[in-house]
Amino acid sequence: VAAAMAAERALAMVTCTAPVNIAVIKYWGKRDTDLILPINSSLSVTLHQDQLKTTTTAAASRDFTEDRLWLNGKEADVGHPRVQACLREVRRLARKRRGGSEDTATLSLSYKIHVASENNFPTAAGLASSAAGYACLVSALARLYGVEDELSEVARRGSGSACRSMLGGFVQWQRGERPDGTDSLALQVAPEMHWPELRVLVLVVSGEKKPVGSTAGMQTSVETSPLLKHRAEVVVPERLAQMMRHIRERDFEAFGQLAMRDSNQFHATCLDTFPPIFYLTDLSRHIIALAHRYNAHHGHTKVPAGLPGCHSTVALPQVPMSPPIPPQVAYTFDAGPNAVIFALADTVAEFVEVVRRSFPPATNGDQFVRGLPVGSAVLSQELVAAVVTEPVPGAVQYILHTQPGPGPQLVDDPSQHLLGADGLPWSRV
Amino acid sequence: VAAAMAAERALAMVTCTAPVNIAVIKYWGKRDTDLILPINSSLSVTLHQDQLKTTTTAAASRDFTEDRLWLNGKEADVGHPRVQACLREVRRLARKRRGGSEDTATLSLSYKIHVASENNFPTAAGLASSAAGYACLVSALARLYGVEDELSEVARRGSGSACRSMLGGFVQWQRGERPDGTDSLALQVAPEMHWPELRVLVLVVSGEKKPVGSTAGMQTSVETSPLLKHRAEVVVPERLAQMMRHIRERDFEAFGQLAMRDSNQFHATCLDTFPPIFYLTDLSRHIIALAHRYNAHHGHTKVPAGLPGCHSTVALPQVPMSPPIPPQVAYTFDAGPNAVIFALADTVAEFVEVVRRSFPPATNGDQFVRGLPVGSAVLSQELVAAVVTEPVPGAVQYILHTQPGPGPQLVDDPSQHLLGADGLPWSRV
Repeated sequence: VAAAMAAERALAMVTCTAPVNIAVIKYWGKRDTDLILPINSSLSVTLHQDQLKTTTTAAASRDFTEDRLWLNGKEADVGHPRVQACLREVRRLARKRRGGSEDTATLSLSYKIHVASENNFPTAAGLASSAAGYACLVSALARLYGVEDELSEVARRGSGSACRSMLGGFVQWQRGERPDGTDSLALQVAPEMHWPELRVLVLVVSGEKKPVGSTAGMQTSVETSPLLKHRAEVVVPERLAQMMRHIRERDFEAFGQLAMRDSNQFHATCLDTFPPIFYLTDLSRHIIALAHRYNAHHGHTKVPAGLPGCHSTVALPQVPMSPPIPPQVAYTFDAGPNAVIFALADTVAEFVEVVRRSFPPATNGDQFVRGLPVGSAVLSQELVAAVVTEPVPGAVQYILHTQPGPGPQLVDDPSQHLLGADGLPWSRV
Repeated sequence: VAAAMAAERALAMVTCTAPVNIAVIKYWGKRDTDLILPINSSLSVTLHQDQLKTTTTAAASRDFTEDRLWLNGKEADVGHPRVQACLREVRRLARKRRGGSEDTATLSLSYKIHVASENNFPTAAGLASSAAGYACLVSALARLYGVEDELSEVARRGSGSACRSMLGGFVQWQRGERPDGTDSLALQVAPEMHWPELRVLVLVVSGEKKPVGSTAGMQTSVETSPLLKHRAEVVVPERLAQMMRHIRERDFEAFGQLAMRDSNQFHATCLDTFPPIFYLTDLSRHIIALAHRYNAHHGHTKVPAGLPGCHSTVALPQVPMSPPIPPQVAYTFDAGPNAVIFALADTVAEFVEVVRRSFPPATNGDQFVRGLPVGSAVLSQELVAAVVTEPVPGAVQYILHTQPGPGPQLVDDPSQHLLGADGLPWSRV
C-alpha cells in the first residue's frame, strides 16, 4: 500500500535540453497549416547544445490548479494553440500506451502541468528558437508521461522545423504523402559524429531585435509565388537526394555549394511572394559577397585559372562572376538576419580573422568569438587585398563557433530543474 | 551632269532621337548570345522623349578616313562588336534594297562614317541608356542609307531591349522561334495615346555611379538558375498574354499588380543565380514597402475591409501582408538602382508628396521634381501616419515625371546636328 501510494506521485518533474538546427535544404510553405505539413522535404544540421540549446522543465502535480508556462522567466500563454497541440498529442500517446487504463504507478494525465523553458541564446534572434523550444517541450512532456514513441510528428505540431531538432546530426524532414501527416517525420541522414571536421559559425548581426515569425510569410508565398510551387515540386526533390549524397560522402565542396544555392533560392521565393518578403539586407549581401570573394581567392590560388571580371551593382559589394569555384566556406540564411557559415575545421581560424577584419568589432572585441575555441591566423597580404574590401565596423556583433551535435537530452541532475519543489520558477535574486 | 554630281553627295548627315523603355514583363537571359535572342518575350512602355532621350547624328563622307564614334562628347571604340553588328546589318539592308547595283544618286556604302550620340540624362545610371542608344544609332544609320525595313531586328543586335525602343507606346519584344532570329522582333501592342492617363515617375537614387552591364549577369542566370528556366518557359507566356489584355483594357490595377510581381520575380531569378546577383538594395526595399503601404492605405480607405497584421524583418520597412489590394501605384526595378513608378495622372501629385516626405531632399529641393509639371497636394494626417514611416533624408536624388511616348524621331533642324560640317563634334566652349 505504501509503495502504491508512493507510486501515485504527487509531483513529477523532468528536465530536457534540445538543439537548434540549421536547414541546408530549406522549408518554406505548408500544404496543411493545421497539421503543419510542408510542401517539400527539408534537410538540416543539428547544432551542438554546448553552444546553443533550450532547456525545459515540465512538472505535473495533483496540487497544480491550472496549466502554466514560463518562457525565459516570464509567464506566457499556455493556451497557445501550438503548445496545446503538443500537450494534447503527448497525452494522447500516453493514453494509447497505457491501453486506456489509468495505471496508478504512472503519472495521472488529469494533473495540471507547469512548464518552464529557457534559451542560452537571445530568443527570437533568428536562431530558430521555436524549433529548439518545441522540440524541448515535447521531449520533456514525453519523458514526464513515459512516452517513447516517434515524437518528431508531435514536435512538428509545435513548429515545423522543430521536428528536425528531435534528432542529432544530419536530419531530413520527410514531406510525407498522407493527409493525416503520419508520414511527415524526421529521419536521421547521418549521426553527429559522421563528419567530425564540419564546423558552423553563426554570425550574429542582431541579437536584440525581434524578427517577425515566418508563419504568415510562408503562407503568402504558397498562395502567390509561382516560383515556390516549382521549387517545391521539381527543384527540391532533386536537391534533397543530392544533399543526402554529399553528406554521406562528406563532400564539403558539393555540400557547401548546394547549401548556398538553396539558401539563395529560398530567399528568391520570398522575393517572388506578393507583397514581397525580404530577409536579406545589404549586410547579408556584404557577407555573401565576402564568402564568394574568399572562395574565389582560394579557388584562384589553388586552380591556376583566370577569373573573369566582376559583376555587381552600384552600392553593393562585388560578387565575383566565374564558373563555380570549390567553396571553402558556405553561407546559409534563414528567415532572420543572422548568417550561418559552414566550413571545415582547418578553415575556421583564417575565415574568422577575415570576418574580424571585414567587420571590426565596435568595442574591445574580447567577446567577438564565442563557443568552440578558434586558433589564431595570420592573413596573407594577397588574401586581405582580395577579400577584405570596404570593412563595415560593428556590423557583426559576434561569431558563435559550433559544430553538429546530438538530439534532445535528459538532464539527470535535479539541481538543473527550472522549477522548484513548489512547481514555480526559481526566484532570481 | 551637274545634277548627277550633286547627287553623288560628298557628305550626308542625319540626326535622330530615340526613347528609353521600361519593361513591365522583364527580359533576362539569351538563348543565342551572338544574335541576341531572348529566352522569353518581354513587354515595355516607351517613355516620352521630352524627358528622356538619346540624340544621334550619323554622317558619311568620302573625305572621312576612318569610322569614328563619340558618346557624350568623348570618342569611343567604334570597333565594339555590337556597334559593328548594327552598322553591318544596316549596310546589308541598304545593299539588298539597292538590288546590288550602286546607284550614284544614293550614298556610297563604301564611305566611312562618323557617329555622335548624346543622352539628356546621366549615362548608365540604370536608365537603359544602351536601349535608347542602339535604337537611335540604328534609326540614324537607316535614315542615312535610306533603309525603311523592319529595323527592330537590327537594333536587337546592339542591345536586346533596344528593339523595344524602336516603337512608341506599349511594345512587345516577341521571343521568336527561328534560330536565325528573323522572328524575334518588336511589335506595338498599343500606341502611346492609347492610355493618356498613365504616368511614369523615375525615382533616381543614383545618377552618378555606373552600374555594371547586365550581359554577363544574365548569362550566369541562364546557366545556373532553375527558377529562371521555369519563369521563361511557364510563367512569362501566361503573364505576357495577361499584360497585353490589361494594357488593351487600360486596367491599371491589374497592370500595376502584374508589373510589380514581374519585377519582383526578375530580381528573384537574379538571387537564384549562382553566385547570386543583387540589384535591389535596402533603399529599393524602402521604396517597395512605401508603395505597398500607400496602396494598402488607399485600399483600406476605399474598401472597408480589415487589414491583417504586418510582416517584416528586423531592419527592413514593413510590407503590409494582406490579400492583394488594388494598387494606386506600381513599382518596377531594372538591373540598376533606380525605381520606376507607374500611376494614373490623378495620383501623381499625392504620391510625389509622399515620396518627398519619405525621402526629404538633402539640399534646397527646388530640382527635386523634374519633367512634366506636378501639382501640389496636401496629405491627410491619416495618410502620413500610415505611409510616411522612418524618412530617409537624401536617399532619392530627384523624381522625373514622364509618360508614354512615341518611337524614334527624325530631327529636321540641321542646327541640331551633333556633328559640324567637318564631320567632327562641335567644340564645346
